[in-house]
Amino acid sequence: MTAGGALGIIAGGGRLPVAIAGHARDAGLPYFVIRLSGLAEPELSSHPGEEHNIGALGAIIATARKFGADRLVLAGNVPRPDFASIRLDLRAARCLPRVLAAARNGDDALLRAVAAELESEGFRIVGADEAAGVLRAPAGALGAHAPDDEAQADIDKARRVVRALGEHDVGQGAVVCAGLVLAVEAAEGTDRMLERVAGLPPAIRGDAARRRGVLVKQPKPGQERRIDLPTVGVRTIEGAANAGLAGVAVEAGGALIVDRDAVVAAADAAGLFVFGFEPDTRA
Amino acid sequence: MTAGGALGIIAGGGRLPVAIAGHARDAGLPYFVIRLSGLAEPELSSHPGEEHNIGALGAIIATARKFGADRLVLAGNVPRPDFASIRLDLRAARCLPRVLAAARNGDDALLRAVAAELESEGFRIVGADEAAGVLRAPAGALGAHAPDDEAQADIDKARRVVRALGEHDVGQGAVVCAGLVLAVEAAEGTDRMLERVAGLPPAIRGDAARRRGVLVKQPKPGQERRIDLPTVGVRTIEGAANAGLAGVAVEAGGALIVDRDAVVAAADAAGLFVFGFEPDTRA
Repeated sequence: MTAGGALGIIAGGGRLPVAIAGHARDAGLPYFVIRLSGLAEPELSSHPGEEHNIGALGAIIATARKFGADRLVLAGNVPRPDFASIRLDLRAARCLPRVLAAARNGDDALLRAVAAELESEGFRIVGADEAAGVLRAPAGALGAHAPDDEAQADIDKARRVVRALGEHDVGQGAVVCAGLVLAVEAAEGTDRMLERVAGLPPAIRGDAARRRGVLVKQPKPGQERRIDLPTVGVRTIEGAANAGLAGVAVEAGGALIVDRDAVVAAADAAGLFVFGFEPDTRA
Repeated sequence: MTAGGALGIIAGGGRLPVAIAGHARDAGLPYFVIRLSGLAEPELSSHPGEEHNIGALGAIIATARKFGADRLVLAGNVPRPDFASIRLDLRAARCLPRVLAAARNGDDALLRAVAAELESEGFRIVGADEAAGVLRAPAGALGAHAPDDEAQADIDKARRVVRALGEHDVGQGAVVCAGLVLAVEAAEGTDRMLERVAGLPPAIRGDAARRRGVLVKQPKPGQERRIDLPTVGVRTIEGAANAGLAGVAVEAGGALIVDRDAVVAAADAAGLFVFGFEPDTRA
């Protein structure tokens, strides 16, 4: 709990925790990984750390103390659990009423409640961007391509849709093509949404020969940015390419790019833009 | 064009035009059906009428005059066409710039533009509910089941989400389960959305043993209600049952129930409610 303590990475699914752990190792910083069973990528077991079930909050806290954590980052995908069936240890059971009450108000409230529990134990919760700053999306075009006027109009429309939804704690993404909202993201996640767009009638979307439409991801208004920033990785680019989109746009500073070099290479090769737009002036 | 003229049913896909045509025939009213090629149900060819391509506006108008139409109802699903590739007759080509401009503002604007073209030819555009009033959703429980407190809270949340989206001309439906927004409808339509919910992790949704969550459909604010009211049919109930939902809720007077007896029978058998809620007081 001293200055210069270790960074604890509580790892759900996907590439984000892998990228943060790799960054910490490469930078020679003290760190460890708590792998959530059934969620964390298997390769994370090559890092210092331990594996725990998601309901084993007491054991997770004990591990964090053992490894000398002063900061914790919650990273990766964690599907909302079935609270009626997960195994809870005593520490988790103690905070369950608070967490359940928060869960009724949506995923963001749920994450805030979990973060508050960990902070009450003396840890500081940091965002993935603070844990590995290189991952934050910059403003402007990231690769070789940039949005044209139609794509820019689609970006603007998709931003309005995502903002309207975010006020109800729904999703962080939408796909718009030539002014038509093709898909809105909720519990299924971005990859599934992009698969769906690829299955829509060709008349209302683009294709590899003539790319049209954009995926926009941006944080919800007032979002818990330490925990749940929208993320773009190579799979996102592949999904967007497969859906015939012209590109992917994210809020500069408000989204994470995982494996940036690979993302840019994939986008350049497929002819897609990856673009960071300025945050809303009205916060 | 005289009082007591015929009702012309311009038929896209799905059961709604079939129900309207059946209603007109059973009631002994003068009517005919213009079947849109590749969209209208084949059984509609048993009714008086003709088949036309969607771009053959001049031919559609000529048929309407020939059958003595004074009113037209646009009913059924019509996917947004690829304007660059459909064949247009002269009358359609003449209004294409107006329709294209409207299409940029969303599906509702597109439908309004098409309706305005037909009205400029002297026809009155009527809604499916006016053409066949028995189909309008009533208030309250339609079958044997009714929403409990959790379902009522989910209905309220889903209504807020659909309303927020509707202001951006997106979809008319959402699925909420225990406060969590599972899916939001955009271009894919209700049936595909329900399939997606059935594929979500069991932990966050209901199942046949313990039904949870609701599908809500309601019109967009300011929607062109003559043309594009949300519709519930037997397939909707089957999809909702398969997704583990507790029921389906629609705006009373603001949605159409197609094949009402079959809908109620399917819902009762599966243990689902079909519920009509009062419209928003703030219009």
